Amino acid sequence: MKFLTYKSGKELRVGVLDDELGVLDVSLAAKKLLKENLPDTLRGIVEGGPKALSIAKKTLKAAQAKSKGLFTPLSKVKIATPLPGATKNIFCVGRNYKAHIEEMAASAGNPPNYPKMPEFFSKPPTTIVGPEDKVERHAAYTDKLDYEVELAVVIGKKGRNISEANALKHIFGYTVVNDITARDAQRNHGQFFKGKSYDTFCPIGPIVVTPDEFGEPGGHKLTLKVNGKIRQDSNTSDLYFGVPRIIESLSGALTLEPGDVIATGTPSGVAAGMKTPEWLQVGDVVEAEVEGIGVLRNKIVD
Amino acid sequence: MKFLTYKSGKELRVGVLDDELGVLDVSLAAKKLLKENLPDTLRGIVEGGPKALSIAKKTLKAAQAKSKGLFTPLSKVKIATPLPGATKNIFCVGRNYKAHIEEMAASAGNPPNYPKMPEFFSKPPTTIVGPEDKVERHAAYTDKLDYEVELAVVIGKKGRNISEANALKHIFGYTVVNDITARDAQRNHGQFFKGKSYDTFCPIGPIVVTPDEFGEPGGHKLTLKVNGKIRQDSNTSDLYFGVPRIIESLSGALTLEPGDVIATGTPSGVAAGMKTPEWLQVGDVVEAEVEGIGVLRNKIVD
Repeated sequence: MKFLTYKSGKELRVGVLDDELGVLDVSLAAKKLLKENLPDTLRGIVEGGPKALSIAKKTLKAAQAKSKGLFTPLSKVKIATPLPGATKNIFCVGRNYKAHIEEMAASAGNPPNYPKMPEFFSKPPTTIVGPEDKVERHAAYTDKLDYEVELAVVIGKKGRNISEANALKHIFGYTVVNDITARDAQRNHGQFFKGKSYDTFCPIGPIVVTPDEFGEPGGHKLTLKVNGKIRQDSNTSDLYFGVPRIIESLSGALTLEPGDVIATGTPSGVAAGMKTPEWLQVGDVVEAEVEGIGVLRNKIVD
Repeated sequence: MKFLTYKSGKELRVGVLDDELGVLDVSLAAKKLLKENLPDTLRGIVEGGPKALSIAKKTLKAAQAKSKGLFTPLSKVKIATPLPGATKNIFCVGRNYKAHIEEMAASAGNPPNYPKMPEFFSKPPTTIVGPEDKVERHAAYTDKLDYEVELAVVIGKKGRNISEANALKHIFGYTVVNDITARDAQRNHGQFFKGKSYDTFCPIGPIVVTPDEFGEPGGHKLTLKVNGKIRQDSNTSDLYFGVPRIIESLSGALTLEPGDVIATGTPSGVAAGMKTPEWLQVGDVVEAEVEGIGVLRNKIVD
């Protein structure tokens, strides 16, 4: 299934997307068609576990079968970030595609060194924005604004010390993160955190696709365009540490909870890796896309 | 004023501490004595800004003057972590006392290099525990369990791009953090995040002291004992980057919000810095203390 959060007037609603029919207000439809209670946020449905997911699925089927009028064309809704109201920082993996590790080492004038274990950092909730939301340039705080398309995982089932073999069972779905980065701050502050954590630096969306529809996390093309020109073009099969390994490593001694988001790292092609870096500027439109999920588009503003 | 969160039956209540009289349920007393509504969590009072703080102050005065029976002796209450229900990770500063920078460099066999800007990282809410709560040994995930006493700041007023000169105005109060660390994971994962983020790795407490009572952030002795033996013994005057500078640096392009906690770094004396490191073991009792706040005591368990 494809879940999204969208604006209905001033309210945020959780929807299920049918590629042909459009967006179904799944909480409203569950009550109307099945007399079932379903949380009216995606976070609530994620926290509701298999039962909530099953009600959502039955609701979609019922609406597809006999209540097509309940769907709104996708073009008529304003999509928001799928999981507003984060209660912890976004988990992120750094240096997780071979060619990106190499381009970053070269840009710093160093030989590449490959990580022995996944390298984690975080982005606070104040960074999160949605599709079509504006990303701030923060010109007073960076001369080197960069982009990073990433496959992101939404955790569905609480767990700690999760094995690689069990990791996929803990996933609710997949979405796209653009891990916007102030490269100068990333370097100058020693740790990655600060340069990754400016307000609006974490576009997430446009939708969350469940594993039954997305398939295995490997094998998905991911691309990023700036003003229509391809900058990043890779495949999640090239992840240095794959999704199961990331979950095993992150969850060791650390409890993952439903609704947690893990951004899995970016491939090569970032501005920092270019011979003459073309940093993001005011007015630029950035489109981050992962095959099977969709395009996360954001404009850089003053 | 001295604020704390404590357990009353199964409920958490926000209290104000009078050193002689004990703990006042300040929300209950505000209603009873002044017919004023005050949030019944410390987070709520912090978010309530100067008005809530003023009501709390008046309530304390009224109770001290004529309702001493409303206080409970401190020994009779079970103190919890002061700000439960975090909605983002704890902000932390690494390498922020000169002697600690030097001991860590020496332990890695490197010459010391001093940071040019504060080095930030974070600890997720799943790490937070309170005074007297247990800290897990996580023996399967670290051979090198370490402690770090730190002065921590609680933000009271929302802000971004805060100048050093204005920084102290954004502080609600001060508390103690023990930044428990798996040194092997801290190094092996490249970034500090993972080795700092195991469950129960962030004891916070015992109380939050407002600036009018705490005074300037510099000039406070901070110590850490393991099983009664002094390991760390320093003063917040030795902070490499002082509190105003930390707030200026962190808040650049990044919005700080009421209730945010910033741990300001630890002095020398950590186990990693010892010639033969005495890592924390099951059964150890760790007492982190900052002068003017109190002792944050935790036991290491299996």
